[in-house]
Amino acid sequence: MAEQPMARADGRRADALRPLRLQRHFTKHAEGAVLVCFGDTQVLCTASVEEKVPPFKRGSGQGWVTAEYGMLPRATHTRSDREAAKGKQSGRTQEIQRLIGRSLRAVFELDKLGERTIQIDCDVLQADGGTRTAAITGAYVAAVDACRHLQRQGLLKEWPLKDAVAAISVGIVEGVPMLDLAYVEDSACDTDMNVVMTGKGGLIEVQGTAEGAPFSREEMERLLDLAQAGIQQLVQAQQEALAHE
Amino acid sequence: MAEQPMARADGRRADALRPLRLQRHFTKHAEGAVLVCFGDTQVLCTASVEEKVPPFKRGSGQGWVTAEYGMLPRATHTRSDREAAKGKQSGRTQEIQRLIGRSLRAVFELDKLGERTIQIDCDVLQADGGTRTAAITGAYVAAVDACRHLQRQGLLKEWPLKDAVAAISVGIVEGVPMLDLAYVEDSACDTDMNVVMTGKGGLIEVQGTAEGAPFSREEMERLLDLAQAGIQQLVQAQQEALAHE
Amino acid sequence: MAEQPMARADGRRADALRPLRLQRHFTKHAEGAVLVCFGDTQVLCTASVEEKVPPFKRGSGQGWVTAEYGMLPRATHTRSDREAAKGKQSGRTQEIQRLIGRSLRAVFELDKLGERTIQIDCDVLQADGGTRTAAITGAYVAAVDACRHLQRQGLLKEWPLKDAVAAISVGIVEGVPMLDLAYVEDSACDTDMNVVMTGKGGLIEVQGTAEGAPFSREEMERLLDLAQAGIQQLVQAQQEALAHE
Amino acid sequence: MAEQPMARADGRRADALRPLRLQRHFTKHAEGAVLVCFGDTQVLCTASVEEKVPPFKRGSGQGWVTAEYGMLPRATHTRSDREAAKGKQSGRTQEIQRLIGRSLRAVFELDKLGERTIQIDCDVLQADGGTRTAAITGAYVAAVDACRHLQRQGLLKEWPLKDAVAAISVGIVEGVPMLDLAYVEDSACDTDMNVVMTGKGGLIEVQGTAEGAPFSREEMERLLDLAQAGIQQLVQAQQEALAHE
Amino acid sequence: MAEQPMARADGRRADALRPLRLQRHFTKHAEGAVLVCFGDTQVLCTASVEEKVPPFKRGSGQGWVTAEYGMLPRATHTRSDREAAKGKQSGRTQEIQRLIGRSLRAVFELDKLGERTIQIDCDVLQADGGTRTAAITGAYVAAVDACRHLQRQGLLKEWPLKDAVAAISVGIVEGVPMLDLAYVEDSACDTDMNVVMTGKGGLIEVQGTAEGAPFSREEMERLLDLAQAGIQQLVQAQQEALAHE
Amino acid sequence: MAEQPMARADGRRADALRPLRLQRHFTKHAEGAVLVCFGDTQVLCTASVEEKVPPFKRGSGQGWVTAEYGMLPRATHTRSDREAAKGKQSGRTQEIQRLIGRSLRAVFELDKLGERTIQIDCDVLQADGGTRTAAITGAYVAAVDACRHLQRQGLLKEWPLKDAVAAISVGIVEGVPMLDLAYVEDSACDTDMNVVMTGKGGLIEVQGTAEGAPFSREEMERLLDLAQAGIQQLVQAQQEALAHE
Repeated sequence: MAEQPMARADGRRADALRPLRLQRHFTKHAEGAVLVCFGDTQVLCTASVEEKVPPFKRGSGQGWVTAEYGMLPRATHTRSDREAAKGKQSGRTQEIQRLIGRSLRAVFELDKLGERTIQIDCDVLQADGGTRTAAITGAYVAAVDACRHLQRQGLLKEWPLKDAVAAISVGIVEGVPMLDLAYVEDSACDTDMNVVMTGKGGLIEVQGTAEGAPFSREEMERLLDLAQAGIQQLVQAQQEALAHE
Repeated sequence: MAEQPMARADGRRADALRPLRLQRHFTKHAEGAVLVCFGDTQVLCTASVEEKVPPFKRGSGQGWVTAEYGMLPRATHTRSDREAAKGKQSGRTQEIQRLIGRSLRAVFELDKLGERTIQIDCDVLQADGGTRTAAITGAYVAAVDACRHLQRQGLLKEWPLKDAVAAISVGIVEGVPMLDLAYVEDSACDTDMNVVMTGKGGLIEVQGTAEGAPFSREEMERLLDLAQAGIQQLVQAQQEALAHE
Repeated sequence: MAEQPMARADGRRADALRPLRLQRHFTKHAEGAVLVCFGDTQVLCTASVEEKVPPFKRGSGQGWVTAEYGMLPRATHTRSDREAAKGKQSGRTQEIQRLIGRSLRAVFELDKLGERTIQIDCDVLQADGGTRTAAITGAYVAAVDACRHLQRQGLLKEWPLKDAVAAISVGIVEGVPMLDLAYVEDSACDTDMNVVMTGKGGLIEVQGTAEGAPFSREEMERLLDLAQAGIQQLVQAQQEALAHE
Repeated sequence: MAEQPMARADGRRADALRPLRLQRHFTKHAEGAVLVCFGDTQVLCTASVEEKVPPFKRGSGQGWVTAEYGMLPRATHTRSDREAAKGKQSGRTQEIQRLIGRSLRAVFELDKLGERTIQIDCDVLQADGGTRTAAITGAYVAAVDACRHLQRQGLLKEWPLKDAVAAISVGIVEGVPMLDLAYVEDSACDTDMNVVMTGKGGLIEVQGTAEGAPFSREEMERLLDLAQAGIQQLVQAQQEALAHE
Repeated sequence: MAEQPMARADGRRADALRPLRLQRHFTKHAEGAVLVCFGDTQVLCTASVEEKVPPFKRGSGQGWVTAEYGMLPRATHTRSDREAAKGKQSGRTQEIQRLIGRSLRAVFELDKLGERTIQIDCDVLQADGGTRTAAITGAYVAAVDACRHLQRQGLLKEWPLKDAVAAISVGIVEGVPMLDLAYVEDSACDTDMNVVMTGKGGLIEVQGTAEGAPFSREEMERLLDLAQAGIQQLVQAQQEALAHE
Repeated sequence: MAEQPMARADGRRADALRPLRLQRHFTKHAEGAVLVCFGDTQVLCTASVEEKVPPFKRGSGQGWVTAEYGMLPRATHTRSDREAAKGKQSGRTQEIQRLIGRSLRAVFELDKLGERTIQIDCDVLQADGGTRTAAITGAYVAAVDACRHLQRQGLLKEWPLKDAVAAISVGIVEGVPMLDLAYVEDSACDTDMNVVMTGKGGLIEVQGTAEGAPFSREEMERLLDLAQAGIQQLVQAQQEALAHE
């Protein structure tokens, strides 16, 4: 019955996250480099500091935070074409990278960052649903590392992050609201929602889509409840990952 | 005080739509051709019937509905570059046209359409906020006209639309939840939400974004209430526009 | 017999223009915005003032006038692909926009314009033959409105336009020279000629093409006579449209 | 005085062509390969037979003739960017190659060609004005060679060319109508006209442009007279070049 | 003295490889998925089986092997632009992926593969010199895994690989011939050579480039000796990695 | 027997070059313009002086030398698509133009050139194998002419070329090592090697590829011997061509 959290393909309860991993310093060149895993979804998030800003920020005293997203061709079940070879990024890629950029900027105080850019790159090594929410969750940790790098170099007067940010997907699968959908669940779901929240619980983005039948206000409430609880766990895990240097 | 609908730049109440216009047969070639105006926002929505489907639908017995979106270079306050001259569509354009396509497909029964495509084109002649929601609202009327055209030609066994669909923007401007934001309001708002609903009141898409401070669950509820009431009026107007042949 | 002006599909005489409409202030943002209709051909011409010039004019004290041309996908009988989605403008589009730009520059004194650009955009809302000639005729009116805007702001020392410019198509259809071809006539004609002239009757562009059999010098003379008379009417209509503020 | 043909930079009379060269079999792979020189303007025109037609001609029993045009980067006084490296052909290039294609098709009977394509390539090795008219003049000779090749192979039932075609530029330079403009004359001219005619004297294309002041009907007549006489000489030279195998 | 292998920045002898790692099954979707590390250079090589071949192989009874190469934007010391965002692959990228494809095809018997494609993707997660040679070495192991996958499914009549293939870089750094250059060595070297060999010692590719002074035949011999010894170790390591299922 | 130089299709000995032609001043605008022919392979090499350098050289006091390569569509047996029309250069084109650029830079002293660029363009008029090696050999002569032009204008303090550079292909055809492969030989060969050397005999580039079976060290030595002797003849011919002004 839909009211009871029921078991899923991987044995999880409906309100359970997949095993979470946030591995900092995964590669050596970037100022922040985090491998984030939501179960079998693996995304490498790097944060690069660049001592310049886009034209519309020049002379403003403010910095900028932006993101790009990509997927290795064989991150997916069947190989997808390489966007660099096709010569353009898909609409889906652009939507996701714009979402990641907006989500990160929501917790930054750009004037405290100074006139520099933090360039986030989220590259999916293996995909199993939820790549954009994993990317946001990992990108925050990479961004903190990049800011700590700036701080260690004495380049920041004030800490430029005002809150944490994390994201999770929720959806209604065969009538049951579920947290953190894996690919098979995502493919089968009627309603799919991505929620981005701050550490303090403020909503940054809510993107709900009826894949099959429309959804009701009540279903939406149930999904937001699930997401809220899940994001609290993610923010907790971010803090733990960042606890040590 | 935020609780009271207050007057706006154009004198509207916070819960009022802008003057709405749905002018069918605006141009003569397309099977459906609707000029939709939400105040000063003017979008020409055409629905073209093409007797072919994309590769992934071939042989399926099902049709397809898809959309493209564009903006005339001087639809906006300052001229924006022509996408055809730049050689690519922006991420924003792609997001919007994907949204329009999904929204329309949500009310179509593709097997009843038969193996043909309804291609929606939404071109903004003049922009003053809410172009994507006007586009969806007008595109539905154009799609009905295209289906009536098919019906008159005896090409449909069953009516392929199961419901109406309309969309509206809502936002929190200086603390006040408002319906159908004009450009100056949209630029100033803290939270911006686009809501797509069916005629029967089911949610198709909810896309809320914190432009400034994060928003709370309570604010989100208030915005959804406003949107729901606004969309009911839009659906009523769609029915009236479609009442005559 | 070809010597006598004969009736056409729409009842016009061979030497008659289609009903002409020049609606100024059609949209609100552009400095000039004119909807021009040659019968069922409808083109929105906007003139945008930009306070910069292309690199080859910088520091010259001279301004620049240039044009872009587009067609809404369903302006035509069957839908044509959106150039922004295809990622490039067709050769036909480029030819037309280069012609519009040259034609307008022929009546401008660029040094009196000052170092600024008037960017013309001609977008076809509905096509029924003669879109390029309608575009030139409407663009001139939009350009005057843009110059008046500059004048009202005190930005012009001298009036930068030295003459009016208008354009019309002529062609030989089943042996009969005809003025202002509609689409069905254009498709059937042996020879198609576009003529651009100033208000004072000077030739700016003559582009004659044999679609079927070659044409003789005598036929060419007949076509130029027709065009000359037609353009005089267009220039008259431009003056009337511009008579009031 | 403008009435008298006067001497030019290279000593020519106003009504004289530059030294003309039509060298067949300039390269060995193409079915037709002609180096055409109008003075210092050198264009390599090849005609390639391809046993296929574009989609819109498939199953029609008709062939197709089309052209592409290019300029080596240092064919000009100062190097121009390589279009292949820029990733697109300029509007000028597209205009010219469309003109060449139309001009050649005007003398072909496509049903007699059979369902195959003659692909013309005109590549400018050295530019000194008049590259498009040289290209058309040389392309005709290359096309004849390609048809002779087909004929020798027994692939043609009837000869598919109904006439010759050649082209020349004319212009008004400091008040004097002149034939076959070299680059320095072209840069300085008030009016520039390209004329394409058949061997029998029919007009195929007339493209006149006022670069400075508008031109009158009388001036146009003078230019057409000059062009007509020049093209007769070109057609004569084409016949001579083609006289031997 | 140059004759004696001398110690390097990381303490290696001139004729020593960096620590090598060949981790199979690094991701789960691809038929072959190998993380190859040459020291700090880390490349993820996947081999995807696709049951189709390019047009030029259709109906030939033969299969095809091809490769694509990419670099994550922050794989390098300073971030490089994302090729998918720029809309094209660099000349360097294309050179490398063509080299990988040729090298793998050199050890395949395409008729034994059957009409299917093995698509190799080599994506650099971290770069420290030698990414193309690491890619070839890892791609062979991924290709073996893909062939084993086909064999387990009973899709191969005969084993399609006739030999192993591996690659290494060699160079002359400050006069000293060295094996397997790290980035700092590669930047400083006079001569850089990439060598691809089979398991049996046959040469597949030799690409030597003088970065500074030209090199002599004697230096070339020294480099080939070093490379040959290094590749033998790589082939040995490939065999060990492939020894277990 | 492989040991004995044997006759080839065109009667050459295995160690003989094809007839060589180096025609300077082939076109008139470029500072250097050389038509180089290796038998039926004809490449027009121009060297253009541009008084600017790429961004990474600005302010360095050093110049730059770079190259672009192209092939006329019908330079080949069957017509190949025009890269400008396709909108991108192939991987092969990019490889070749990078090779030409590197080869020329190897003999330049960029500080003596001053902050200017020598832009090499190599365009193949007719192809019969060895286009890249002909291009390098001709480009050197064009570059000398461009430097002499600079010298005559008093723009060089010191001569910026420290040596000559030329290139040749060698390969093993049916077991026989051969020099300067024509197209039919190139298509049939097992091993193909391009060698670039200086006038003093230093190696600049060696690119050997096994097209069929791998090659041995011994075969490689044989090929290098052939190439070395061939390049000495080419350098001799360059000197003769440059002997007069």
